[in-house]
Amino acid sequence: MTHPINLSVRDTALQISSGRLSAEALMLSCLATLAERDPDVRAWQHLAAQAALGTARLLDTSNQPKGGLAGVPLGIKDLMDTADMPTEYGSPIYAGHRPKLDAAVVAKARSLGAVFPGKTVTTEFATFHPGKTRNPRSPAGANHTPGGSSSGSAAAVAAGMVPVALGTQTAGSIVRPAAYCGVVGYKPTHGLLPLAGIKPLSPSLDTVGVFARTVDDAAYTAGALMSDPALMEAAQQPAIGSLKVGVCRTPHWQRADEDTRAAVQVAVQTLQKQGVQVHEFELPTACEGLTQAQIDIMAFEAAAAFEAEAQSNPSGFSPAFARFLQAGQAVGAVRFRAALALAEEARTAFQCAVAGFDALIAPSTEGVAPVGLEATGDPIFCRMWTLLGTPCVHLPTGLGAYNLPVGVTVTGARYADIRVLAVAHHLENLL
Amino acid sequence: MTHPINLSVRDTALQISSGRLSAEALMLSCLATLAERDPDVRAWQHLAAQAALGTARLLDTSNQPKGGLAGVPLGIKDLMDTADMPTEYGSPIYAGHRPKLDAAVVAKARSLGAVFPGKTVTTEFATFHPGKTRNPRSPAGANHTPGGSSSGSAAAVAAGMVPVALGTQTAGSIVRPAAYCGVVGYKPTHGLLPLAGIKPLSPSLDTVGVFARTVDDAAYTAGALMSDPALMEAAQQPAIGSLKVGVCRTPHWQRADEDTRAAVQVAVQTLQKQGVQVHEFELPTACEGLTQAQIDIMAFEAAAAFEAEAQSNPSGFSPAFARFLQAGQAVGAVRFRAALALAEEARTAFQCAVAGFDALIAPSTEGVAPVGLEATGDPIFCRMWTLLGTPCVHLPTGLGAYNLPVGVTVTGARYADIRVLAVAHHLENLL
Repeated sequence: MTHPINLSVRDTALQISSGRLSAEALMLSCLATLAERDPDVRAWQHLAAQAALGTARLLDTSNQPKGGLAGVPLGIKDLMDTADMPTEYGSPIYAGHRPKLDAAVVAKARSLGAVFPGKTVTTEFATFHPGKTRNPRSPAGANHTPGGSSSGSAAAVAAGMVPVALGTQTAGSIVRPAAYCGVVGYKPTHGLLPLAGIKPLSPSLDTVGVFARTVDDAAYTAGALMSDPALMEAAQQPAIGSLKVGVCRTPHWQRADEDTRAAVQVAVQTLQKQGVQVHEFELPTACEGLTQAQIDIMAFEAAAAFEAEAQSNPSGFSPAFARFLQAGQAVGAVRFRAALALAEEARTAFQCAVAGFDALIAPSTEGVAPVGLEATGDPIFCRMWTLLGTPCVHLPTGLGAYNLPVGVTVTGARYADIRVLAVAHHLENLL
Repeated sequence: MTHPINLSVRDTALQISSGRLSAEALMLSCLATLAERDPDVRAWQHLAAQAALGTARLLDTSNQPKGGLAGVPLGIKDLMDTADMPTEYGSPIYAGHRPKLDAAVVAKARSLGAVFPGKTVTTEFATFHPGKTRNPRSPAGANHTPGGSSSGSAAAVAAGMVPVALGTQTAGSIVRPAAYCGVVGYKPTHGLLPLAGIKPLSPSLDTVGVFARTVDDAAYTAGALMSDPALMEAAQQPAIGSLKVGVCRTPHWQRADEDTRAAVQVAVQTLQKQGVQVHEFELPTACEGLTQAQIDIMAFEAAAAFEAEAQSNPSGFSPAFARFLQAGQAVGAVRFRAALALAEEARTAFQCAVAGFDALIAPSTEGVAPVGLEATGDPIFCRMWTLLGTPCVHLPTGLGAYNLPVGVTVTGARYADIRVLAVAHHLENLL
């Protein structure tokens, strides 16, 4: 029999719903892994082990119909409000903060039966000042960043403490930590999962997504949270017969190191061997400048969003965050509006250009997780996709330097999440 | 000498900054009007008269440099978090709720020197269940709705209690109450003013804007809040020499009554008399279905956003709001994604079609404020503009049935806020 922690999320929920698996036993197994690994990994900002066990026991003994995430241990990024756990947004300004209610996506997960062992570490306000988390894939004696901002969620899944975890992406905060920690990260099309009750950073960009061990787990979990049965089944669909996939090296290809170039190459060759048509994808000229536009929009909107903290408690900001907000003020309204207008034109041009493709393969990061815990790596390859709002799946493809994981981004047209997940799943099976 | 309450917002701030006008005296004058009118109008959910007077006195005696809204009395819709006043979102679920910090736009207004007499009435969670506010323009003995959801902000400005007030629009919650109460309402292009700290309803649509007595006051105030000097001066710009204006009757023209048709006609003729080219504007076919798409997106996103309240306190919802959320769940993820995709195509087509026009004139409402306080009127003419995200200025043009105000919407291309405000100002001067 498969060890319960190795079941897929859908099978976990199914077996717990039918009484063949105990939610309590599964949570105990997760907590055991957590106890073993977390002193080193530090993925959790707050633990609620007893509460999680209590919830799991209630599920086991309840005769109520159980939801699509029944008994599934789920990590919650500490950027998301929780009524029963502290919510600190990675900032001392919010030390001990207790929101009145759950974030919408947390409430939805709860209503589906998910059980939360605690809150996972976020960088400060989901930006660049790191939390305490270490990369669980770091070789012994070395400290590589787990990436950010969803550092704890990526690391917790990578270390086997939970099968799935929630995160958010504004620049590269799902794809980058997924890549560095070697797990699947799925950032849906912008706007599909609700942001209510999640600390706003840059609403034009902020996107809720999931970390998981497999594309199917990611699709199933996100689909359940969206009440979207078709998305839940996205990675179960039979392989598409005559796939057409593009390779988008992006304007930053010269920043991709050997590991990243090899990962893209592996993905391309793997697909080609199966007869998939793979073509170079040329970004429309309207997409030039997207990365700078993303930087401008993110900084400007953050400066606006943190006006209250900036006035009431500016000394609570890290120097890096204070500088980031200053840079945002310096952007100014004229450049901000121009960046938003550029993004709109780029979205239209991209949506036309991608219409003939089932999906695109692109670099996720410059290379493997950099050494050091003082920074979380550069989201250079993620920024443009976040601003375009496209669905992105980070898929691990193998190992690079230091035996650390590398992988690629599978993306595509906005609202084509199901197709992008299906292609990512197809590629995952082939690798 | 002009009575201080009749000064423009820019002159008010200027005179208070230079010590020629007392912020305390101005606030006392506002509070006197408020005391006289509010027992009938009921625009305020919470009053903080003593605190406002204290803040005004501090401003008068401070030697610090003063901001662009120095001493300006500003109404704050009770959908926006305030650290020093209750924030109840129009719902008993949040009775006595005290947020930790101000909403971003409130903090910005405070930092610019604005003074808040209190919080203005919102309908329940900015939707359809009315608050207690009455239309200050109602004839004696009759009760016409002030419109919603920013009922209190529109009514407070219309009754002369404050020169400006903040509101939000998700369907028609700025334009409609502005029209019914006979004031200027300005909904900026979606995304220009920050939503952080404002109760989310439907993030694809939620937009912060202002109510004012004049287009210049609206542009100046919104521009100050955006740190956008060019927008602050939008209504001070010389009339554009060879304006080209479109008339967009919208797919709902048959719902416009005689008063609304006359208002559009008055606006058109007034412009034509000045030699302005006025053309019928045909909406691109891609814009068909926008109103239904707005209804679907708003309901679906609201159902997702209120998941936590729906689980923890469903009996706190009005029956109408509970039904609205149920309708949102019934929309489903497939129709939601289709509506978002339709909106994107419509935005692109509209932005092309409007490129040759300086602005468009469109109906704001079906007619004057309906009789009765059980409903807030239909946002039928506003929904499509909110989903397109275009800047909208409601401009009063005269009186209709019951001697109640009517007017028109001046709109245009996304991010063309300055031009749209300039055209609205030009028309305002001619009327």
